[in-house]
Amino acid sequence: MEKRIGKQTICFENPPSVKSYYSIVSKKESEGPLGSYFDRIEKDMMFGEDSWEKAESKFLQTAIQEVIKKSNLSENDIDYIFAGDLINQCFSSHFAARETDVPFFGLYGACSTMAESLSLAAMSVDGGFAKNALAATSSHFCSSEKQFRMPLEYGGQRTPTAQRTVTGSGAIILSSDNSSPVHVTHITTGKVIDFAVTDPNNMGAAMAPAAADTIRAHFNDTGFSPSDYDLIVTGDLGNVGKNLLFDLLENEIDIKDVYNDCGLLIYSLKSQDVHAGGSGCGCGASVLCGKLLKDMEEGKMNKLLFIATGALLNCESCFQGESIPAIAHAVRFERR
Amino acid sequence: MEKRIGKQTICFENPPSVKSYYSIVSKKESEGPLGSYFDRIEKDMMFGEDSWEKAESKFLQTAIQEVIKKSNLSENDIDYIFAGDLINQCFSSHFAARETDVPFFGLYGACSTMAESLSLAAMSVDGGFAKNALAATSSHFCSSEKQFRMPLEYGGQRTPTAQRTVTGSGAIILSSDNSSPVHVTHITTGKVIDFAVTDPNNMGAAMAPAAADTIRAHFNDTGFSPSDYDLIVTGDLGNVGKNLLFDLLENEIDIKDVYNDCGLLIYSLKSQDVHAGGSGCGCGASVLCGKLLKDMEEGKMNKLLFIATGALLNCESCFQGESIPAIAHAVRFERR
Repeated sequence: MEKRIGKQTICFENPPSVKSYYSIVSKKESEGPLGSYFDRIEKDMMFGEDSWEKAESKFLQTAIQEVIKKSNLSENDIDYIFAGDLINQCFSSHFAARETDVPFFGLYGACSTMAESLSLAAMSVDGGFAKNALAATSSHFCSSEKQFRMPLEYGGQRTPTAQRTVTGSGAIILSSDNSSPVHVTHITTGKVIDFAVTDPNNMGAAMAPAAADTIRAHFNDTGFSPSDYDLIVTGDLGNVGKNLLFDLLENEIDIKDVYNDCGLLIYSLKSQDVHAGGSGCGCGASVLCGKLLKDMEEGKMNKLLFIATGALLNCESCFQGESIPAIAHAVRFERR
Repeated sequence: MEKRIGKQTICFENPPSVKSYYSIVSKKESEGPLGSYFDRIEKDMMFGEDSWEKAESKFLQTAIQEVIKKSNLSENDIDYIFAGDLINQCFSSHFAARETDVPFFGLYGACSTMAESLSLAAMSVDGGFAKNALAATSSHFCSSEKQFRMPLEYGGQRTPTAQRTVTGSGAIILSSDNSSPVHVTHITTGKVIDFAVTDPNNMGAAMAPAAADTIRAHFNDTGFSPSDYDLIVTGDLGNVGKNLLFDLLENEIDIKDVYNDCGLLIYSLKSQDVHAGGSGCGCGASVLCGKLLKDMEEGKMNKLLFIATGALLNCESCFQGESIPAIAHAVRFERR
C-alpha cells in the first residue's frame, strides 16, 4: 500500500512515460496565443460532417488515430482507451471508439476528463494491466452551447462570467517503456464538491472550490510545495474562477507565482471576445497536448501539476433548482 | 505483464475479494421472482423526492451508504468510488457522490456500468492503489423513459422488443483484505461494437453482438470453457437479445446449459407485462448484488461470469440516423 500516500494521492512505483501526445483544434483556437503549437488546425467546425456532434466525434477520432501514428505504434499495441466528453451519453467518445478495435472504458468527468482519463490510464500502466494506455477527450463550442445553454441561432448575449467551450481534442499515450523523459509520477483524485453555486453561466465559480480542495489534498498528501513546480495549471477556471481560487487558498497555499489556467492560455481575452476564457474538456486537453507537454519534452519545464476541473451539472439539474457539483483531478508530470 | 492474458483480459495477481454488496429496488422489482432477495424495497418510486432524477440519485446514494455500513467500514476507509448511470451527464451518480467525502471516478458505460465499475475497482485494488474500492450504479424506469423514449404521460404503446428499465441500484465493495471467499479473478474489457441496429426500442439486438464479442474474447484469452462456469449471466439482453446471442455464438461456443440474463431473472415475463425483460444499469447491478453474490457467498455457486452490456446511443444519435454502438464488459467471480 505504499503507492497510496495520504487520502487522495498515488505515488507511482514505475511512473508511466508520456510516449506521445497530439492536439487538434479549430479556427478560433488557432487565432489565439497558442495557435502555432497545435498539431493540426481544422478550420471547418463541421469537419465535413452534417452535425456538430458528429464533427466533435471526428475531432476526437482524429486525435486518437494520430496519437497512435505519432507513437509509431499500431492500434493493436494499445491496451486500453480511456475517454469521455460533454455530450449526453458521451456520444463523441463512443462514435470515435467505434472506429477502433481497442478495449474501451467510457468516462464522464465533464471538463475534468483529461485528468481523469490520464489518472486511470496511469494506474492501468503502473498496475501492470497495460503496456500502452490511451487517454483522450474532446469538446465543441456548438454542440456544448446547444446542449447546455441556448440554441446558437437564438443569438443570446453571453454573460461576462461565461466561458467559451474550446473546439478541439487532445490524446496522450502513457507507456511502461520509458521511451520519454516525461513521466506521470503522482495523481490526486478529487471528490465531488458543491459550494451551492447555481449559475450555469459561471462555471469558474462552481469549479474553483473543487480545484482548491484537490490542490490542498495534493500538497497535504505529498509534502510538496508550490515552489516544487515550474507550473501549476488548472483547466479551466477562466479569470473569474482563477481569482476565486486565489481567495479560497489565501493564507494557506500561495500558488500565484507558478499558476496559470488553460482557459486563459488558449485565447486572448483582450481581443477574442471570449469573456472569462476558454472551457470544455478539449481546452485542458489541447493546451496540455499542444503546448505544455512540448515544453516539458524540450526541457523548458521539469515539473508540472495539471488540474482539470469539471462542473457536474446537467440541464435538468439546473431546471430543478439544484446547485452545481464540481470535481477536480490532479496529475503531476515530471521530467526525469 | 503476466497480468494481461490475451488482448482483452486481466488475470489478477491478488484477486480482490467481495467484501460486501447491497441492493435496493422498487415496487415492480419486488413483485418479481427475486423479490425476497433484495436488501431493501422502496415501494415509492419517487423515494420522497420531487423529481425522478433525484429519486434515482437517492436509490444510488442509499446503496452506497448501506454497502459501507454492511461492510463494517466507515466512509473514510473507502479509497475510491467508481460509479455512473444513464442520465445525461450522470446526474444520479454525481448527486449521490456529493454526499460522500470519497475520491470519485465518474463513468459512462450505459447498462454495462456495473461491470465497468467493478473492472476498474478491481484494477485499483490489485494494482495496490486502493485497499477498499466501491463500485456502484443505478437506473430508474421513469427517468429513463423520459430521457430516452417518450414522456410517460403520453402513454405510448411499448413494442414487443422493448425492455423495462429497472428502478434500483446495486453497490459492491472490493477489498484487498481477503475477508470473503468470493473474489474477482479476471476481467475481460469490451470494445465498442456496432452491427448497424437502428431501433432504440430493441436494445437487446443492439447489445447482443457486443456480448458475443466479449464472451468470445474471454474464452479465447483465458482458455476457459463454458463448463468451467456454474452460471454465465448477461445484463441485460432480454429474450430478444438472448436468442440473438445464441445465434451469434452458434457452432462456436455453446453456453446454453449455463446461461441466463439478469433482464429475464428480475421480472416474470409471463405475468408482469415487461415485454422483452428488464434493462438499465440497475438491472444487472441489483440482480448481481441481490441474488447472485448471495448464492456465491452461501456456496450455491462457485464460478460466475457476469457480462454487463450497454447500448451507447443517445437521443441525438438516433435522430441523426446513426446506428447504436454497444459494449460489454465481463467480470469473473470465483469462490475460493
